[in-house]
Amino acid sequence: MIHEIVITQFRKMLGNLLTILDEGEAYATHKGFDVDVLLRARLAPDQFDLIRQIQIACDNAKMAAARLSGTEAKVPVHPDTEKTLAEVKARIESTVRYLGEFAPTDFAVAAERRISQPRWKEKSLSGTEFVVQYALPNFYFHVTTAYAILRHNGVPVGKKHYLGELPFKE
Amino acid sequence: MIHEIVITQFRKMLGNLLTILDEGEAYATHKGFDVDVLLRARLAPDQFDLIRQIQIACDNAKMAAARLSGTEAKVPVHPDTEKTLAEVKARIESTVRYLGEFAPTDFAVAAERRISQPRWKEKSLSGTEFVVQYALPNFYFHVTTAYAILRHNGVPVGKKHYLGELPFKE
Repeated sequence: MIHEIVITQFRKMLGNLLTILDEGEAYATHKGFDVDVLLRARLAPDQFDLIRQIQIACDNAKMAAARLSGTEAKVPVHPDTEKTLAEVKARIESTVRYLGEFAPTDFAVAAERRISQPRWKEKSLSGTEFVVQYALPNFYFHVTTAYAILRHNGVPVGKKHYLGELPFKE
Repeated sequence: MIHEIVITQFRKMLGNLLTILDEGEAYATHKGFDVDVLLRARLAPDQFDLIRQIQIACDNAKMAAARLSGTEAKVPVHPDTEKTLAEVKARIESTVRYLGEFAPTDFAVAAERRISQPRWKEKSLSGTEFVVQYALPNFYFHVTTAYAILRHNGVPVGKKHYLGELPFKE
């Protein structure tokens, strides 16, 4: 299930985020204000703005795939310099492409891997703990907060934009 | 992994939500306003308020456990009548207790089960699709939005309150 979560679903949610940003752009155009206002918007003065929420969501997805597949040394670097909507969208698209390079077999031993990151020093989680208790809540935190910033500023998005299509069977 | 997500982790996140609500109550007391102001707060006039966000998060967790274990017929009913902080906390605690009644074996065939719900008519998802593409994004959407409503209103909560403790090994 790790591949479904970290690759298939995170890619899908990042795609949904692109749609949500397009709605933000259309709203700014319709209302006649600069879309940068949305990119710099935040829900609290000491919480990250929309650009930073999206950068972190992208990093959550990218680093989860890299760490769980044991390919952290080869992960592409994103210096967090995005300032415009086009740059923010390119960052998301770059992350979606990167995730698309993984196959289910890359995560064959992911559940049992010990996962760490620099600020955890020598401490680690199992792959399953990392996905369930860290990667998932973090990724959805930043995607939902990005959505909430736009929603709070009047962008007409709804739960369907956030969830995307579901693979129903009749 | 379904048991870890839907039982262990959803219970943990609901416990974190109780802590976050306690911070909201302490903030209201400190500032001298009625905590009901927070319970009725929302990020947009046509988005649900804090009470409704919490009710839905609880229902997402409860119904995911019930549907994935094939015990929907026995699920406890919550009529969504909560009005006070004490009632909202009791709703969360009731959901945490309910989730605590499940064992990993209850989800032995969950991944392959066909999952539906009344408003999907006859359409269905596999258990894995339901968890990954529906239950997870929905649950975290409502928990994060609840957090965001409080954060937006000045309650001093941070990512640590949201994530809770991680089971690190040295």
